[in-house]
Amino acid sequence: MKKHDQDFMKQQNRLTVFEIIKHNQPISRASIAKQTGMSPTTVSRIVGELAERGYLLESEQVSVGLGRRSTLLEMVDASVLSVGVELDRHQMIVGIVDIQGNVVCSGKYPRSAEESPDATLKLIGEKINQLTLLHEIDGNRVIGIGVGLPGIVDNDAGVVVFSVQLGWKNVRLAERLKEITGYEVVVDNELKVKALAEHLKGATKGSSRTALLGFGNGVGSAFIFEGEIYRGKTNSAGEIGHTTVDPNGMMCDCGKAGCLQTYINISSLLSEANKIRPMRTIEELFEARRAGERWACYLIERALMYIAITVNNVVCMYNPDSVILSVELADKYPEVYEEIEELCMSRFVWEPLRESFSIFRSELQEQGVMIGSGLLSQIKLFELE
Amino acid sequence: MKKHDQDFMKQQNRLTVFEIIKHNQPISRASIAKQTGMSPTTVSRIVGELAERGYLLESEQVSVGLGRRSTLLEMVDASVLSVGVELDRHQMIVGIVDIQGNVVCSGKYPRSAEESPDATLKLIGEKINQLTLLHEIDGNRVIGIGVGLPGIVDNDAGVVVFSVQLGWKNVRLAERLKEITGYEVVVDNELKVKALAEHLKGATKGSSRTALLGFGNGVGSAFIFEGEIYRGKTNSAGEIGHTTVDPNGMMCDCGKAGCLQTYINISSLLSEANKIRPMRTIEELFEARRAGERWACYLIERALMYIAITVNNVVCMYNPDSVILSVELADKYPEVYEEIEELCMSRFVWEPLRESFSIFRSELQEQGVMIGSGLLSQIKLFELE
Repeated sequence: MKKHDQDFMKQQNRLTVFEIIKHNQPISRASIAKQTGMSPTTVSRIVGELAERGYLLESEQVSVGLGRRSTLLEMVDASVLSVGVELDRHQMIVGIVDIQGNVVCSGKYPRSAEESPDATLKLIGEKINQLTLLHEIDGNRVIGIGVGLPGIVDNDAGVVVFSVQLGWKNVRLAERLKEITGYEVVVDNELKVKALAEHLKGATKGSSRTALLGFGNGVGSAFIFEGEIYRGKTNSAGEIGHTTVDPNGMMCDCGKAGCLQTYINISSLLSEANKIRPMRTIEELFEARRAGERWACYLIERALMYIAITVNNVVCMYNPDSVILSVELADKYPEVYEEIEELCMSRFVWEPLRESFSIFRSELQEQGVMIGSGLLSQIKLFELE
Repeated sequence: MKKHDQDFMKQQNRLTVFEIIKHNQPISRASIAKQTGMSPTTVSRIVGELAERGYLLESEQVSVGLGRRSTLLEMVDASVLSVGVELDRHQMIVGIVDIQGNVVCSGKYPRSAEESPDATLKLIGEKINQLTLLHEIDGNRVIGIGVGLPGIVDNDAGVVVFSVQLGWKNVRLAERLKEITGYEVVVDNELKVKALAEHLKGATKGSSRTALLGFGNGVGSAFIFEGEIYRGKTNSAGEIGHTTVDPNGMMCDCGKAGCLQTYINISSLLSEANKIRPMRTIEELFEARRAGERWACYLIERALMYIAITVNNVVCMYNPDSVILSVELADKYPEVYEEIEELCMSRFVWEPLRESFSIFRSELQEQGVMIGSGLLSQIKLFELE
């Protein structure tokens, strides 16, 4: 067997043991071995690794029935903490989460759009220090940092390849933030970690195929398959914003015409709206629609139709059991969700698949990216070191 | 741990042992246990199961170095055979394949479009008997039948839910064919098994994310992720034919407007062509284009553009390392592949992903569905019984 495959198997075994303890605690070593088919030696080695890191509690307990004493294992939830960061154009959220994804503390901070990567990363470091001091958190229990942001991220290398919203290109974020803070750092696309958080702790717990669709400054999707983020070859899976929905459509900043995002994202909608009258926020556009201005009705209804088309196209491709809609562009107009669901089910979703999935709204709301980033940095521990 | 999870783990362990022997033979039981971390008991149980079915050869060999005798295990390739069937509107292919997917023998037979399911299944039974007699194949070595066909298939239940091409609805194919032949039967969508075959034995061996796109009487895709068919919730993943590419487009037989397939599939193209002049085959349309008839050029070039758009949309969603084009509609005009690749790379594929994948043509050609169906029926053995 190749070295790579052996490492992969070790990693799989470690994850399996971890998950079994998490969901069946308290549990004995013998019971883990029996359930997994692993040898007692392998189980003991993995349990030893986990215990050494302080994730496990051992206790002597009397098993029911036989009356024999055996050592049972339990997770120590609060012993492991990590930092989650959501980085966006105009603000960032920094928080500390435990092993179950509970938020221990968090803060929201403004950020200037032109801020350099180094300035932003220093700010993150400062905010982490402030939070740990203020909430008297033992820094040794923090095992790493996860950062979620809009854009194309090379998650293996920890590099922000390209982010239109941040204006960053080829930023070695993980490396730099580790230099500043001393912690291990993982970086990922914001929708991927948000979907992970909703799957582990939010709207779609227990689902094995969740697609999350995000509509805001960009348009994108993320897919969680059997508990893991589906990444694709270059961590770009789900970039639905650049699927072509009309070859004769409007120009997209990517150089193609008729990309889906040209009909939906906030900047496109504002640019179209400004052909009629000047406005600076998407709320003004929604207000114009409420006031019954026909052009605003047209523009928003076209966007909602394309959102329903997006649901259809994603459902046809991934055939998920759950779809989470995260419609940032209609944050203040929750009734829009109902309009979208109605469009999906009455017209735009292919009939054979209409019953195959449920539509959810984000449960973790604006904390989703931060929580998902924090949890991702914990999961990374169980991958190759 | 839940019963379901325990079964899943057993199945995973069995597959792991099988794969390790297949790729590292000859190999000892102790070595398998060491490499997987499984207990010797678990390994012996699984090896026993495989040996009982005649898949393994045991031989006494002297290990290099220690000079100790140990029993080494090897796969018996030719001992296991299965039947693969491709079922289409006007013809069917029946073949027998071994454990490596080599075709032992096969035949192609006409089928009338109006034939009832029962008549077709009886015919399949007869053809299998003919092939085994003619080629003197021991029926006991045949472990099952796999059938691939166009349409929506409930692969778990072995039911053809709906096939426009065959005109079938809710046909309990697996059950009926088992009654007729006595063999275990699996059924699947043709593109899914074709992609599996290309991955195991054809154009994309070694790839871990292959998308196969099929353009012919229908339009569809299939995705192989880490060696397995990605199915989605209801085995409908990849149904790209009903993604909307133009909400103002032509009506589709599904009741929506502007589905991708309305621009590409053979019946749509012929229906459009017949508005200009009567023709019955797609070849006539291609000949009209060769003769420089402008309307034919327009129609075909629009179709090719939409094929390139399909490549883009699939690549944005799945972010594969390999894309296999299976352009049945241009079977006799292989130069069309070059046109499509040129359109993809010069215009229609989103720039950040242009370098992320390679485009292949089908290697197994018209045998792909049959080989894939046969291999699928073997793989099923390692799933829950």
